[in-house]
Amino acid sequence: MRLRVKEVNLSAGHVLIAILSKEDAKHLDVNANDRIDINGTKVIVNVSSKGVSKGTIGLFEESLKTLKLKPNEFVNVKTSAKPRGIEYIEKKLRGKKLEKEEIERIIQEVVKNELNEAEIAYFISGCYTRGMSDEEIIYLTNAMVKSGKILNTKNKKVLDKHCVGGVPGNRTSMIIAPIVAAAGFVMPKTSTRSITSPSGTADTMETLADVSLTKEKIEKVIKKTNACLVWGGALDLANADQPIIRVERFLMLDIQPILLSSILSKKKSVNAQYVIVDIPIGKTAKIKSKRTANVLKRRFIKIGKLLGMKIKVVITDGSQPVGNGIGPVLEAIDVLNVLRGDGPKDLMDKSIFLATELLDLAGVKHARSKVLNILNSGKAYEKMKEIIKAQGKNVHRLKVGKYFKIIQASKSGIISEIDNERLSKLARILGSPEDKGAGIYLSVKKGYKVKKQQPIFTMYAESKKKLEFALEELDERYPMKIV
Amino acid sequence: MRLRVKEVNLSAGHVLIAILSKEDAKHLDVNANDRIDINGTKVIVNVSSKGVSKGTIGLFEESLKTLKLKPNEFVNVKTSAKPRGIEYIEKKLRGKKLEKEEIERIIQEVVKNELNEAEIAYFISGCYTRGMSDEEIIYLTNAMVKSGKILNTKNKKVLDKHCVGGVPGNRTSMIIAPIVAAAGFVMPKTSTRSITSPSGTADTMETLADVSLTKEKIEKVIKKTNACLVWGGALDLANADQPIIRVERFLMLDIQPILLSSILSKKKSVNAQYVIVDIPIGKTAKIKSKRTANVLKRRFIKIGKLLGMKIKVVITDGSQPVGNGIGPVLEAIDVLNVLRGDGPKDLMDKSIFLATELLDLAGVKHARSKVLNILNSGKAYEKMKEIIKAQGKNVHRLKVGKYFKIIQASKSGIISEIDNERLSKLARILGSPEDKGAGIYLSVKKGYKVKKQQPIFTMYAESKKKLEFALEELDERYPMKIV
Repeated sequence: MRLRVKEVNLSAGHVLIAILSKEDAKHLDVNANDRIDINGTKVIVNVSSKGVSKGTIGLFEESLKTLKLKPNEFVNVKTSAKPRGIEYIEKKLRGKKLEKEEIERIIQEVVKNELNEAEIAYFISGCYTRGMSDEEIIYLTNAMVKSGKILNTKNKKVLDKHCVGGVPGNRTSMIIAPIVAAAGFVMPKTSTRSITSPSGTADTMETLADVSLTKEKIEKVIKKTNACLVWGGALDLANADQPIIRVERFLMLDIQPILLSSILSKKKSVNAQYVIVDIPIGKTAKIKSKRTANVLKRRFIKIGKLLGMKIKVVITDGSQPVGNGIGPVLEAIDVLNVLRGDGPKDLMDKSIFLATELLDLAGVKHARSKVLNILNSGKAYEKMKEIIKAQGKNVHRLKVGKYFKIIQASKSGIISEIDNERLSKLARILGSPEDKGAGIYLSVKKGYKVKKQQPIFTMYAESKKKLEFALEELDERYPMKIV
Repeated sequence: MRLRVKEVNLSAGHVLIAILSKEDAKHLDVNANDRIDINGTKVIVNVSSKGVSKGTIGLFEESLKTLKLKPNEFVNVKTSAKPRGIEYIEKKLRGKKLEKEEIERIIQEVVKNELNEAEIAYFISGCYTRGMSDEEIIYLTNAMVKSGKILNTKNKKVLDKHCVGGVPGNRTSMIIAPIVAAAGFVMPKTSTRSITSPSGTADTMETLADVSLTKEKIEKVIKKTNACLVWGGALDLANADQPIIRVERFLMLDIQPILLSSILSKKKSVNAQYVIVDIPIGKTAKIKSKRTANVLKRRFIKIGKLLGMKIKVVITDGSQPVGNGIGPVLEAIDVLNVLRGDGPKDLMDKSIFLATELLDLAGVKHARSKVLNILNSGKAYEKMKEIIKAQGKNVHRLKVGKYFKIIQASKSGIISEIDNERLSKLARILGSPEDKGAGIYLSVKKGYKVKKQQPIFTMYAESKKKLEFALEELDERYPMKIV
C-alpha cells in the first residue's frame, strides 16, 4: 500500500510510531500496536480518527529521520509480523531461561525502537520476577555492549569506578579519576546526568569543563591525560540501556539483573579491567538493606569475573550526604577544595579510601601512601586542571545562586537524622541541576551538636521565586532531625 | 502554574496525556511519564520540543472531553504524585498478595486512564508470574464490575453462556439464546466484536439486527423477549476490562487471572446466575492443552461459586471450525438454518448440547427433550425473529460477496487437518468482518474423504482485489491437509 508521508508536529518520545487513518488501518488489517514495515523497518501502528486522512501516514520528526523520509514523499507500507523478541519475552515471563541469541534479539529490537514501552515493561517484569542466571546477565551485558560503541583505550591498564547512587553530593569520581590518572593508569569515567537527583557527576563536572564529547574527542583527552570525566549519554555506549532504564523507572523497584547489566555493560564498553563499585546503604539511599547490598556484591564480583573484569565492591555509609555541597557548583567547590588538600573531611576520606582500594585491586603496592602522596603533593589537582583543559574549559563560572537563605537550628540538640530524599527534593526545587549555582550547602552532619539558631544549612537559588518555593517545601518536609 | 490549553489534532488512544514544552516541564520539575494534576485528575506528562510552546499545554480531543476543557482556556497545572496503584503493582511484582482495597485502587486508576500502558503491563506481569489467589481474583472481578454499569434484569432467573474462543464459526450463542428465552429464562447475551478473528458474535448478529444498543434499550428488549444478542462494548459493563485486555494482547500468553476476572465480571454485570462456559481445545485454538483447560475449569467453577454464580464448564473439540460459514453473513446463514431445523450438523449438535447443559444447570428436568422440542417446533426460530425485531432490524442484507472462488482438492484422500488460524487469516484478508459478505464456506470437515478436484471450500469477497490477495495468501499457507 502506497501512502503519502505527513510530518506530525510533535515528538513521540523514542518509539517508532506511524499514524494511520482508520480506513487504511482496516485495509492493511492492522490494529493499534501492530507493526507495519516501512523500508525494512518495523514501525508501531497508531490509528487515529483525527489529523491523518486516508492515503497519508503520519510520522513524527524523529521517525522521519530514522526512516530517512521527507514530507509528501510516497512510501510503501506493508503489514509486518510482530518483532520476534516478543516471543522470547513471553518465554522469560513463563519462567524459562533465555539463550544468547534470544537476548540479543530483544536488545537489537530495543535499540531499533521496535518494541513499545509496554513490551519493554513485560521484559523487565520477566527479568525481575523470574530472575536471571549469571549466564543470562552475561548475555544481556554483552548484547548491550554490542548495541553501542566501544572506547579505544589502546590496551592500557584501565581502572574504573561506579557508585549505585542515591546519596546527594558524593562526588568522589571527580577526585578519584585524577588520582588514578596521576598514578599512571587510565580512568575513562563516563557518568550520567541527573534525572531525579539534584546533580549527576556529569552535571557537576560541567561547571568546570565540557562534558558532551564525541568518542574521538574523548580518546584524545585520554591519550593526553590518562583520564576523562564526561557525560556517557553523548557517547553511544551500550545504547540499549537507555530505553530499558526509562521504562524501569516507572517503578521504584530495584531490578537487579537490569542494574547489573546496565553498569557492567558501560564498564565493558570502556574496556575497564579493574573496577571498584560503591554501594552506599541507608534508610533514604537507593539500597536500603545490607542483605540486598550483599547479594548485589556477590553477583557483581562473580559476573564481572566471567566478563573478564576484576571487581571489588565496597558497602559504604549512605545515611547522609557525602561532602557539604548539593547541586553542581556547590559540589564542584567541595571537589576542588579536596583536590587542593582542603574541603569536607568525609568526602576526602571516602575518596582516599576508594582510590586506595582501586589501586590495590590493580596490583599497586602500598596503595594508600601512594594515593596520599598524589593528593598531598598537589599532583591530583594538577591532573584535574589538565583534564579540564583537555576536555575544554566551560563558560560556566563557579558562582553560587545570588538568592540565598541560611537555615538555623530550631532548637539545641544533636543532629540525629539527615534525609537524603528530602534534601534532594529541596535542591531540585531550588533549581538544581539546570540552575548550576542552585542547591544546598550543609554546615552540619549527623552527630553534630548544635545550639538553637546556629546555621545548619544554606539554600541557594538563581531566582527569588524558586527560593520561595523551597521555603514552602521546607515548611512541609524538614530534611533534618534534631534530638 | 497556569497554562493555556491547545488542542492537539491527533488521538492518543485511551491514556490521558498532556504535552508540555521542555521549559514548562523543567519549571514543574516533571519528566516524561510523571504525572501532573489538572482539576483533580492525574494526567501523564509527555515533553515535546515541537508543537507545544512555553505557556501552553497540549491535550488530545479525548482528554479535553474527559477534563471538560476547551481550547484557549487557562488551566491550573500542579505536579502530582504518581498514582498510588503503582505501589500495589510493585507489591504484586514482589510476589505479595494484594488486598481488596489495593486491587480496587489499581482498577479505579485504570478506568480513569491514570496508568500508562507500561504500568498496566507491569500489573499484568505481576498477576501472571506470581499468580493470583481465588480471593484476589474475586477482588479483581468485583472491582471490574464496580467500574461499569449493571444490567437491570428484575430478579428474573438469568442464564448465560461464554466461550473462551479461538475457533472460527462456532456461533452457538445465537442459537442458545433463543432456546433459553423460549424456555422462559432470561439470557442477556453480550458479545465482543472481532479483533483478530474473522467475526465475533456481535459482528454476525449485526447482519440481522442492531447490536449497538444502550443499557435502557437492552433492558426493554429483554423485558419483551427474555433475551438479547448485543455488542457488549456499547454498554459500560466492567469498564476496566478494556484497557487491560488491550495491553494483554501485546503478548500471546493466556493470563489466567485476567481471563477469569474479565469473563466473570461481565457475567456478574448482567446478573447471571447460571453460566455455561465452553472451552474448545485444539492445536490451533486459543487453549491448546487439556491440562490448561482443566485448571481453568476448576477455577471457573470455584470462583464462580464464591461470586454467587453456578458455573458449568464443558471442554469441547476445537480442532476445526464449528459450522460451515466463516464471516458474518456466512455464519448468520448457518445460524438461521439451524434454527429452522436444518444447517450444519456439528453446529446444531453443539448448540443442543450446550443449551441442554445450561438448562440442566438451572434445574430444568428433561432438559434435552425440552431443548429439542423448542428447536424442532420452530419456537426457537420464532424467538430469534422476536429478538431481531425488538433490537431493530438492520439494513444489512444476508448477501454473500459477489466475487468468489471455489477451491478444489489438490489430490484424493482424507482431510486430516484444518488450521483454524490460517482459515481466520484468510477470511480476514477476504474482508471479514468489515465486509459482512466476505469469508469462507467450508464444504468438508475433518475426516471427510475427498476426490481430486472436488470442491472443499469457497472464498467470498466484496472486492476483486481482496479475493486476489486471499489467493496469494492461499498459495503460501494452505489451511487444510489431505492425506
